[in-house]
Amino acid sequence: MEGFNLELSDQPESLEQILVDCRDTLKYGVRTGHPRFFNQLSTGLDIIGLSGEWLTSTANTNMFTYEIAPVFVLMEQLTLKKMREIIGWPNGEGDGIFSPGGAISNMYSVMIARYKFFPEVKTKGMTAAPRLVLFTSEHSHYSIKKASAALGFGTENLILLSTDERGRVIPADLEAKVIDAKARGCVPMFVNATAGSTVYGAFDPIHEIADICEKYNMWLHVDGAWGGGLLMSRKHRHKLCGVERANSVTWNPHKMMGVPLQCSAILVRERGVLSGCNSMCAGYLFQPDKQYDVSYDTGDKAIQCGRHVDIFKFWLMWKAKGTIGFEQHIDKCLDLSHYLYTKIKGREGYQMVFDGEPQHTNVCFWYLPPGIRDMPNGQEKREKLHKVAPKIKAMMMESGTTMVGYQPQGDKVNFFRMVISNPAATRSDIDFLTDEIERLGQDL
Amino acid sequence: MEGFNLELSDQPESLEQILVDCRDTLKYGVRTGHPRFFNQLSTGLDIIGLSGEWLTSTANTNMFTYEIAPVFVLMEQLTLKKMREIIGWPNGEGDGIFSPGGAISNMYSVMIARYKFFPEVKTKGMTAAPRLVLFTSEHSHYSIKKASAALGFGTENLILLSTDERGRVIPADLEAKVIDAKARGCVPMFVNATAGSTVYGAFDPIHEIADICEKYNMWLHVDGAWGGGLLMSRKHRHKLCGVERANSVTWNPHKMMGVPLQCSAILVRERGVLSGCNSMCAGYLFQPDKQYDVSYDTGDKAIQCGRHVDIFKFWLMWKAKGTIGFEQHIDKCLDLSHYLYTKIKGREGYQMVFDGEPQHTNVCFWYLPPGIRDMPNGQEKREKLHKVAPKIKAMMMESGTTMVGYQPQGDKVNFFRMVISNPAATRSDIDFLTDEIERLGQDL
Repeated sequence: MEGFNLELSDQPESLEQILVDCRDTLKYGVRTGHPRFFNQLSTGLDIIGLSGEWLTSTANTNMFTYEIAPVFVLMEQLTLKKMREIIGWPNGEGDGIFSPGGAISNMYSVMIARYKFFPEVKTKGMTAAPRLVLFTSEHSHYSIKKASAALGFGTENLILLSTDERGRVIPADLEAKVIDAKARGCVPMFVNATAGSTVYGAFDPIHEIADICEKYNMWLHVDGAWGGGLLMSRKHRHKLCGVERANSVTWNPHKMMGVPLQCSAILVRERGVLSGCNSMCAGYLFQPDKQYDVSYDTGDKAIQCGRHVDIFKFWLMWKAKGTIGFEQHIDKCLDLSHYLYTKIKGREGYQMVFDGEPQHTNVCFWYLPPGIRDMPNGQEKREKLHKVAPKIKAMMMESGTTMVGYQPQGDKVNFFRMVISNPAATRSDIDFLTDEIERLGQDL
Repeated sequence: MEGFNLELSDQPESLEQILVDCRDTLKYGVRTGHPRFFNQLSTGLDIIGLSGEWLTSTANTNMFTYEIAPVFVLMEQLTLKKMREIIGWPNGEGDGIFSPGGAISNMYSVMIARYKFFPEVKTKGMTAAPRLVLFTSEHSHYSIKKASAALGFGTENLILLSTDERGRVIPADLEAKVIDAKARGCVPMFVNATAGSTVYGAFDPIHEIADICEKYNMWLHVDGAWGGGLLMSRKHRHKLCGVERANSVTWNPHKMMGVPLQCSAILVRERGVLSGCNSMCAGYLFQPDKQYDVSYDTGDKAIQCGRHVDIFKFWLMWKAKGTIGFEQHIDKCLDLSHYLYTKIKGREGYQMVFDGEPQHTNVCFWYLPPGIRDMPNGQEKREKLHKVAPKIKAMMMESGTTMVGYQPQGDKVNFFRMVISNPAATRSDIDFLTDEIERLGQDL
């Protein structure tokens, strides 16, 4: 706040000052496109994607109707179909929409499932339905919980599933909890399987979960916000094996595929439920007597009215890279994480959070400074170790050299979660990260 | 679809082809920034706002945490405070967030109201609450209805309020319906007052509605998505008189203030309820042991996880224009609509949809081609007139000269809704519009 006057005034500033403000904004910002920015699942800066976003903002239009976004609406339709084909739904049939982020895409999935099984909730509210319960992994993204709260289910009716040591849902636990919920008079309605969990990068076993969903007539959603990109890779797509059995899929090209923020799709296998769920037929916007086929007016499918054009940057990147370019991007990031895993798994001072090769680019580890390494295991060591990652990260941010995330998980104290989604990163950036952790952490 | 290969391939396209694709995208797009584009509430293209959006996409970061968007988070905080001051809340206190559009902002208001009165719904779901009812004008935006469906109230529990001939809520009708709902055992919880309705541009009488909300302990939301901008004008802000009594306000700078899409704020008078309603305390993102004041991490207030940076373009425009520049922009647009109204109100072939000077820039009128003018009033004339606006609009779109919206409303057949939000428009553009309507409509 010092040296940068953010205050807004009655009078205009000069153009010179506006340019200074722009420079300062970039100067004090965080370089998320830098190959040593490992802090989030969305990193990097693709130059074609950026050009696409610049053109989008120049066109400054709105996705709700074909009449004002004809090209973008067609691009969205075509791209969503292509994504459904890649998921494996016959002829790419189904429906979908781009939404402002994975949390909203996940919220859509819960809404659509509810509409499919209890359409009367749309008009009569949740009191018209029995007590509905939802299931998701204890490792899943918090947006499923947000959706439970927002949509009127209540977070207590979201049942958390146990996972194995790698963070993958245990199908038997799902079935036991479904049976238990039914015995308590609840109606199990929705299961979220995560394809690429936020912290561990774990892939839930979709086929086994799908079997249980079919047996008990539940909606299967796959949250592939983070892991969906792996569908583009012949080498890695087996990790989402069974995804074609999902009723809906979240897939964020702005994460693993490097599309500028935001670009998230919710894809639905059955046609009609997305619009059925959300349409309100506003007469001022979706006039039925237009001179074109009004099925191209996608706005009434959305919970938004105005909707930002998120498709063009993605479509343009796909044109420029080809499917094969995304595949190379993804394979490269996974190769880099393999390099990191191999490098640190036996290295002195490092301890992996779980055993075995990571499934995604998430590499979760503790760094133990020399002073902690030889301490006997116990509460004191845990407490000291818990403070290491926050301290190292604080020093990284102060020196401005690199950024990486950390968090506790369950009974595990703070550990680093390294992720790679920027194909501009190299092995030397990985080496830099471990050197930096060791340099900053040596005296802790 | 002809002559523009939208298909996505395995192999990359050449850079030359990418440039051709960009040119074609603009060529086949709709020029929403043109001063004769009157089709939506969001029009125009502000060059500083556009630069702001370009810088935003270059920075490619995410609003959820201060650590990766320090400058933008501070700008958002400061701008929201300024907006709350302009609303008239003491010292600009309260809370708020930018959201992906007015529909989502309105959805927030309903969620927050529910949390304020029935916080247990967050954990236990809607079945923990009595039967809640919401109220909004029959002329209000359809997003209130979408929110009722999505959040589990049910659209039947959204009670529509009657309006006067100008489209403004009749307060006595609200009170009667509140009393009736209570008599039926329902709990009236939320009232939406519209400041600038979508079609008529009507401003509901906020003070009288606020009195009723206080009397019956209901949340008062003001949907100023379209009309909120008038708060920047000393001449026109009286139309929102009483807005300071609202519990929450939606205000879309991307409409009347010409900020590039999207830029919508939900503003809340009471601090704490927005975060209380939505927070889930995800450990991987909102670590409590960061080295900075984590109250700057705004992400847990949102229903989104990742959130696009919508603040910078707005902040930069405010810097560049000053409050006074927005005021001039708004006054100019309202002057232009006054010019149009004055021009056509007594002109042959035109008929106003309601009597009296419009409150906002919405001018609603029928154009009666010569062949219809002298027909006796009746069903045949209505049917013919109903087809006029769609036909004229179709011809406008085919000739590519101008665009303006139309719709029916209640028992009124299709009429034109002219709106002006682009300060680049001039009187000659208004003259062009009426000339064009008369030219295209003469033989209908």
